[in-house]
Amino acid sequence: MANFDSTTAPALKSWVDSANAADCEFPIQNLPYGVFRTANSAPRVGVAIGDQILDLAVLAEAGLLKCEAGVFARPRLNDFIALGRDAWRSVREQVSALLSRDNQALQGNAAVRDKVLVPQADAAMLLPVEVPGYTDFYSSKEHATNVGALFRDAKNALLPNWSELPIGYNGRASSVIVSGTPVRRPNGQIKLPDQERPIFGACRKLDIELETAFIVGVPNALGDSIPCEEAEQHIFGMVLLNDWSARDLQAWEYVPLGPFNAKTFATSISPWIVTMDAIEPFRTAQPAQSPEPLSYLRQSGEHAFDIQLEAQIKPQGAQKATTFARSNFKYMYWSMAQQLAHHTVSGCNTRVGDLMGSGTLSGPTRDSLGALLELTYNGREPITLETGEKRAFIEDGDELTLRGWAQGAGYRVGFGSCVGTILPAHPVK
Amino acid sequence: MANFDSTTAPALKSWVDSANAADCEFPIQNLPYGVFRTANSAPRVGVAIGDQILDLAVLAEAGLLKCEAGVFARPRLNDFIALGRDAWRSVREQVSALLSRDNQALQGNAAVRDKVLVPQADAAMLLPVEVPGYTDFYSSKEHATNVGALFRDAKNALLPNWSELPIGYNGRASSVIVSGTPVRRPNGQIKLPDQERPIFGACRKLDIELETAFIVGVPNALGDSIPCEEAEQHIFGMVLLNDWSARDLQAWEYVPLGPFNAKTFATSISPWIVTMDAIEPFRTAQPAQSPEPLSYLRQSGEHAFDIQLEAQIKPQGAQKATTFARSNFKYMYWSMAQQLAHHTVSGCNTRVGDLMGSGTLSGPTRDSLGALLELTYNGREPITLETGEKRAFIEDGDELTLRGWAQGAGYRVGFGSCVGTILPAHPVK
Repeated sequence: MANFDSTTAPALKSWVDSANAADCEFPIQNLPYGVFRTANSAPRVGVAIGDQILDLAVLAEAGLLKCEAGVFARPRLNDFIALGRDAWRSVREQVSALLSRDNQALQGNAAVRDKVLVPQADAAMLLPVEVPGYTDFYSSKEHATNVGALFRDAKNALLPNWSELPIGYNGRASSVIVSGTPVRRPNGQIKLPDQERPIFGACRKLDIELETAFIVGVPNALGDSIPCEEAEQHIFGMVLLNDWSARDLQAWEYVPLGPFNAKTFATSISPWIVTMDAIEPFRTAQPAQSPEPLSYLRQSGEHAFDIQLEAQIKPQGAQKATTFARSNFKYMYWSMAQQLAHHTVSGCNTRVGDLMGSGTLSGPTRDSLGALLELTYNGREPITLETGEKRAFIEDGDELTLRGWAQGAGYRVGFGSCVGTILPAHPVK
Repeated sequence: MANFDSTTAPALKSWVDSANAADCEFPIQNLPYGVFRTANSAPRVGVAIGDQILDLAVLAEAGLLKCEAGVFARPRLNDFIALGRDAWRSVREQVSALLSRDNQALQGNAAVRDKVLVPQADAAMLLPVEVPGYTDFYSSKEHATNVGALFRDAKNALLPNWSELPIGYNGRASSVIVSGTPVRRPNGQIKLPDQERPIFGACRKLDIELETAFIVGVPNALGDSIPCEEAEQHIFGMVLLNDWSARDLQAWEYVPLGPFNAKTFATSISPWIVTMDAIEPFRTAQPAQSPEPLSYLRQSGEHAFDIQLEAQIKPQGAQKATTFARSNFKYMYWSMAQQLAHHTVSGCNTRVGDLMGSGTLSGPTRDSLGALLELTYNGREPITLETGEKRAFIEDGDELTLRGWAQGAGYRVGFGSCVGTILPAHPVK
């Protein structure tokens, strides 16, 4: 895999021309996995290349891709992922070779080539994995500090446990949806400051959380734990994640057992799973940790990844989206390895396809805050969009988009986008 | 279903003699569903009758039970449950008729009869459903008050939101296990009062929570909600649930996002799902609710059920278990219908097999407290067992058992038992 080892190596090219543009998110260095369908086909597994999808099911049927029979002709990636790291590596190497500019095996086979390349514009992307469990961490120090100051008090914004362990909670797996699925504004209980009792109605403080997430590829059995130094080997890949949040519901309900209805109505993820091999060249140092973590959370080497992140909002009918957050995954204080080690240190088992969110990835500056709650100081200071409109929180019809990419020398490894448009709440009876 | 409508009707009898004993938990009035296997058979669905299991897969193959083909020859109940209420009712009526003392269809068919009745002693019970999502509520006022006093302060033990909504949180579905599965004591972070930083080690305050849970039978789609008045129609049945809890891990980790590693290492459920039809005769009034719930939580009629509950502890090698808690499901402040209405009011979708715990069901008296945390005042006042040993919390080798039953006139509808024995923690490196 020498070609993927450095951000400064000459960029490998593909015979799929659209993959070679400098700003293309799906060059041959990326090769992320997704599940798609077209008007004429059942759901199946594909790899994004340029503006095309390489249909792995048809490729395998044609005898050009060796892997367990039928594993790509399924509506989810779990069965492929369950084959383990050797299978992931083998398929990545085979696909990379088949798509390389100098390789004729597929390029020169017109009959197969025309069947296995599907324009992304003609395909609908589906949820790439069945998610048996969804956990959301809270691992950005900036975000935890900002939210603590808003929900509790500024003097003790960061609670004592935060610096000792990757705080996380169980999310709701049933409502994890793929990018493009509309999001219905939730109803719920809202406690207004001037009223003694809560009211029941539509959320007035709908927000996003700009996150990434990793997907468990190698599970652990109940009662066992995953050592921190081995944890990255258990990760299949990463996606973007929007942890939609109803801030007014959350403020009222979250004590003492944590967020529930404020988050369970929807969690959006991007459709392409970017593998750990694809982000390997972008490994970098994570923030310094003080105090030194307890033994089971210690790791050597670098465990952050330089992935640029953006959040955009576009009002209904607007011509232009406004980017209101530019952040980076490398700001995350607790690494993915530490998160997974902590999650399993009690003996909690994981399963193939488990989704583990980073928590909102806010950076140190005002234009890097990954939630409107932080950016508008809980709605007190609305932002002005490029259309001239103001936003304290999300309004009906707004389209929210997350984007993420790692920048190499002459290419970028992109995550595609994670999009959701807000439908009005159901009327309250 | 007239025979099941009253606790005072003459008790219906079965030709399976063991089902007719007054203290039998599985009389013909009960007919709970489970998944079992024997040395000679793959996992399949059965119904408990007396000390036997009626093998529904073989019964259906023999043409004596009409239902969708093959639905009982599976290692989980989800596919049967997904058929809906008419199918549940039809199978219950057919099985009840076949097992009635005056019915010869099965009783008189020796060849089939000998194949479809499996002694419970010869069978291993498996997890009855695949659990797509696990939610745990916190709906006993006594428990919430007691825990609030211990974890926070006695003056403000019950938080303001508690009386307005059924507080709940997302649990970890992967570690839901069936009764009889050993439970490994978890390792984790513990903050000792005399030390500035937490230590890493084995839980010292391992506890149980005496709960019931309901299983969702009729799901709702994302974005929709289930009205409170219809919510019971979405419930397939109930089980006992032990929400194992590491109190020292919990006290340190739970702010602000709720319990995580303190609970995710194991949740045990009883193997037999008692249907709503079986508990219908035991419907009773729930505690008076003040203030009156908000509109979406209002319900007419009675929505509690009179189900007696017990928790026992038996040290390793002891001859006798000590019953330390005698409680009742009817003490639950928020009904199952209100829990499900609240869970979905935001538009959160549910799935067939979703497990929804009641929260610890403590009663008003000291001998009705469903957790050692409450009973021993966080370990300060250990209890004395019938063996003479003392317990502040659970020790290695202890066997914990939950039991539950509704008492009819001459019969009882039992839940069987929910058992777990504690294995020592893995050594910390």
